[in-house]
Amino acid sequence: MYRRELLSLGVLALLPQIRLSAQSAQDVIGDLVAGNHILANENVLDGYGHISARHPQNKDHFLLSRSIAPESVTAADIMEHDLDGAPVDAKGRAPYKERFIHSAIYRARPDVKAVVHCHTPSLIPFGVVKVPLRPMYHQSAFLAAGVPVFEIREAGGMTNMLVETPSLGAALAKTLANKPAVLMRGHGAVVVADTIPNVVGRSIYLEINARVQAQAIALGGPITYIDPEEAKKYAASDNYSRAWDLWKKKAK
Amino acid sequence: MYRRELLSLGVLALLPQIRLSAQSAQDVIGDLVAGNHILANENVLDGYGHISARHPQNKDHFLLSRSIAPESVTAADIMEHDLDGAPVDAKGRAPYKERFIHSAIYRARPDVKAVVHCHTPSLIPFGVVKVPLRPMYHQSAFLAAGVPVFEIREAGGMTNMLVETPSLGAALAKTLANKPAVLMRGHGAVVVADTIPNVVGRSIYLEINARVQAQAIALGGPITYIDPEEAKKYAASDNYSRAWDLWKKKAK
Amino acid sequence: MYRRELLSLGVLALLPQIRLSAQSAQDVIGDLVAGNHILANENVLDGYGHISARHPQNKDHFLLSRSIAPESVTAADIMEHDLDGAPVDAKGRAPYKERFIHSAIYRARPDVKAVVHCHTPSLIPFGVVKVPLRPMYHQSAFLAAGVPVFEIREAGGMTNMLVETPSLGAALAKTLANKPAVLMRGHGAVVVADTIPNVVGRSIYLEINARVQAQAIALGGPITYIDPEEAKKYAASDNYSRAWDLWKKKAK
Amino acid sequence: MYRRELLSLGVLALLPQIRLSAQSAQDVIGDLVAGNHILANENVLDGYGHISARHPQNKDHFLLSRSIAPESVTAADIMEHDLDGAPVDAKGRAPYKERFIHSAIYRARPDVKAVVHCHTPSLIPFGVVKVPLRPMYHQSAFLAAGVPVFEIREAGGMTNMLVETPSLGAALAKTLANKPAVLMRGHGAVVVADTIPNVVGRSIYLEINARVQAQAIALGGPITYIDPEEAKKYAASDNYSRAWDLWKKKAK
Repeated sequence: MYRRELLSLGVLALLPQIRLSAQSAQDVIGDLVAGNHILANENVLDGYGHISARHPQNKDHFLLSRSIAPESVTAADIMEHDLDGAPVDAKGRAPYKERFIHSAIYRARPDVKAVVHCHTPSLIPFGVVKVPLRPMYHQSAFLAAGVPVFEIREAGGMTNMLVETPSLGAALAKTLANKPAVLMRGHGAVVVADTIPNVVGRSIYLEINARVQAQAIALGGPITYIDPEEAKKYAASDNYSRAWDLWKKKAK
Repeated sequence: MYRRELLSLGVLALLPQIRLSAQSAQDVIGDLVAGNHILANENVLDGYGHISARHPQNKDHFLLSRSIAPESVTAADIMEHDLDGAPVDAKGRAPYKERFIHSAIYRARPDVKAVVHCHTPSLIPFGVVKVPLRPMYHQSAFLAAGVPVFEIREAGGMTNMLVETPSLGAALAKTLANKPAVLMRGHGAVVVADTIPNVVGRSIYLEINARVQAQAIALGGPITYIDPEEAKKYAASDNYSRAWDLWKKKAK
Repeated sequence: MYRRELLSLGVLALLPQIRLSAQSAQDVIGDLVAGNHILANENVLDGYGHISARHPQNKDHFLLSRSIAPESVTAADIMEHDLDGAPVDAKGRAPYKERFIHSAIYRARPDVKAVVHCHTPSLIPFGVVKVPLRPMYHQSAFLAAGVPVFEIREAGGMTNMLVETPSLGAALAKTLANKPAVLMRGHGAVVVADTIPNVVGRSIYLEINARVQAQAIALGGPITYIDPEEAKKYAASDNYSRAWDLWKKKAK
Repeated sequence: MYRRELLSLGVLALLPQIRLSAQSAQDVIGDLVAGNHILANENVLDGYGHISARHPQNKDHFLLSRSIAPESVTAADIMEHDLDGAPVDAKGRAPYKERFIHSAIYRARPDVKAVVHCHTPSLIPFGVVKVPLRPMYHQSAFLAAGVPVFEIREAGGMTNMLVETPSLGAALAKTLANKPAVLMRGHGAVVVADTIPNVVGRSIYLEINARVQAQAIALGGPITYIDPEEAKKYAASDNYSRAWDLWKKKAK
């Protein structure tokens, strides 16, 4: 709670480098549980999908629930994993099959502190056609960096569509590259950010962007997207922190 | 409950042949009541439509509610029917007019243990145009087998659109053939599976698939659907069991 | 309640001519209050729109709430009106401005016992383009009779769009003719039926039909609508009575 | 409450000039808090966006919450601002960055007593394409006056998209001119009116209009919009007061 209050005062905003590391594992787990409930309540996740966070004291570990529906996650379900995707101390709890999405991205992207994997319906169409997701408004301006599409056939041929091996995770991370999100053809998406509130906010506004971009395309004619320079300036001026407390309240 | 726990441990997944028969009629009725409530809560069914299950101890009987709204079904409403669609012991309860959908399919398809008949709005368009439903993502990969459309005019000429005779039921079962689902022109759909959780899950993701496929078509250009081989591999690796408990909780 | 039970047994279905007259005014008012709440809960009505019923003992009177939001209507708000749209005993209560929709239709259509006027968003597009509403599935088969569009400019030139005079009401009733519903260009729709449950059911499925018809048109290609003969046969075999109790329960 | 009752009797409708000034600041703050909650509940606002009202006793001041999510606003959060956008007595409360939207409009438009700034998803498409919003039905007839689009690049070049300076506010007010609403490219919209209930009602029906206009365009063919003369006559005959109490009740 203390950290949240500091954040709302803008104090921590001056200290981006130490954000997560300033939190205890306890705090991060609290935010991770809230993130699970928020994403379920905002219809980004249903019975499937997951959200993780890099361990605040050990950059080579990350925190992720055992394999249950996000809406049901409690602190006791959060397991520590290493960058090979192996649970550190499973205590009989079954990990998600697709934990390699997370491990591979934390390994490839030191700047990433939180990862969401989702199957949000409005994102599915953009993964299977040749129309790139582009930023419709300031709230989704981070999309100006581009959203690549991961074609699992290129990495693994005919698969069961799941990223359930380290090598498929690495291929996905390679397609993500330095972007904020990647669509997965015939599957869903992955969103990354530097904090849990930011990855939750990005996931929520990515979903809205997909809907309104499809609507704008249906209206016909050229679309004026957010310019990369506009996106860059917006990124420096705002984050999703004001909405975080509201989302938490609504998810209760 | 015990069976659920075994399922979550993956034990029963190794024993697909004995799944339903391992359950008591009591357990199946419990799941059937839950299935009714879930399908109403997830907007697959409204005041109409129904879900049934083959009797776990008598493969020539099936269990189906009396004629009431799915949301209101309790264990006392579940009636046993034979494969002619006749209630075994009605006790004054009125059966659904369209119980012949179920009886004909259980007769034609020994592998089917559960059947849903629905009028889900997003499915209606695909029943009246020449655009086949195709699998958009892993969650609806079972659609790769194909979803035929039942034109009742071919079987019965100008009817009241309802499958309320054994012969119309048989014609519908013939169109369904060995597929997981069949659309009914100007009416709705039928979904089949080997367990109640699976038929509920298929019904829910069929609805989502219809919506996202329509959206992808509107975006324009070619669509990469789930390949039959991908679908086959996915089918072997997962089911909807993880979502089942969440759906039940939300339906309460 | 008693009448409902008879209805569910199919007894009253054999006696369509005496349906409403078999009810007391008290019963009709109860159904009318329920109808208001249901239509608000099912998003057919918002703060505006209304539902009325012909008086069961006086065919030249009808029952309609005073001018308040449908969701807030109680029995004490229901006022008796004559076929000129005049409140019989207003007791200081303000009538709806557009009560002439109801009075004109009850005058022109002796078969009509219940009327809904709504501004349901999904209906608005079909009132302003040249695409007629047509029946997509059995639940909306009554649309096979056709849904004319009322252009108020033809009856009144440039108006405030409201049917707030007897002559505009008469013009609307003339456009409705012997049909089950009429769209009002730039305004909404009117739905009529022989019972309150039926006018509520028709209003709910009219809304769904508009949505799914628009979706089918977007998919492209020819659409197979319900044939008039199919609609006629369906009309003889069913009504919305099974859903009525569910809608009431959900509206509470 | 007293004023509401007078309004419902139509008494205050005869006295438009003194409407707001007849209210105490206390009453306006009560309506402003309700307006925040209503707009959140009706999905016009999410964690962002704001609603303000001109001070009833000081036309050079306006009332606006401190920088929090609309759903969480209480009377204690409402701050008085002057027409430069400066809080009169902040007491440590942080103002919205984009308060200059409000200050500039109150300065330019003496007739405006209430302002909403929103990012409602269905409005976003109309801000980025060349299809103007036009009035689909009586409830949104006010749109007949036209809805200009504010291109912030014309006023400020490449910005962070936010109207966070007096000069950007003035440019926005200039684009709004004497209209009831203005779209902001890649951002959202601003709606103005002469009362808080009216600006709330306009915001709600603007959202519905955007949805149904997009649907009508998708149906194809020419659209008959509300004629300016029809809009003018409708404006004289109605307002959103009947819905206000319902919206308040639902937002609780």
